[in-house]
Amino acid sequence: MGKEDDSKVFIGRKKSMSYVMASMVVLNEKPVRLLARGRSISRAVDVAEILINKFVKGSSYGEILIDTETITNKDGTNSNVSSIEIEIKPPKK
Amino acid sequence: MGKEDDSKVFIGRKKSMSYVMASMVVLNEKPVRLLARGRSISRAVDVAEILINKFVKGSSYGEILIDTETITNKDGTNSNVSSIEIEIKPPKK
Repeated sequence: MGKEDDSKVFIGRKKSMSYVMASMVVLNEKPVRLLARGRSISRAVDVAEILINKFVKGSSYGEILIDTETITNKDGTNSNVSSIEIEIKPPKK
Repeated sequence: MGKEDDSKVFIGRKKSMSYVMASMVVLNEKPVRLLARGRSISRAVDVAEILINKFVKGSSYGEILIDTETITNKDGTNSNVSSIEIEIKPPKK
């Protein structure tokens, strides 16, 4: 929170390739962190694997964090949803 | 491969709670490894969070591995599918 962090890519419901492209831009100069919640978690894992195996050879996994976030629904009730944060480090130069 | 490894729980399409129960049995005496592929990855993350936050207080994350597996379809073609392996360690005694 607070400062804008442009090294994070939020994974939602678009096609995996659009997140791969967004991540490559970040990864070109620094580590990227893929964030996803709920069903998008599978897509975040896909994006990570595509990046590391196909698009940015030599990049590697950093921290992988799993957590639970509490979301307030429109009717005022709370739901718990799992989240993941996957760090990918650029190739060593 | 080779030896049967009863510390692994394969996450498929059943409800999360049935995997939580299976994992608790293992976690009672040793670390458990949750394995999932494709869309079941989100469910594996849910199972892990439910275990750690609700059912086995004091348990914690061990290794989290992400990989790609190649699956041969019925028509002989190959598909790549992402996989995850989440280790959960029992509470320290």
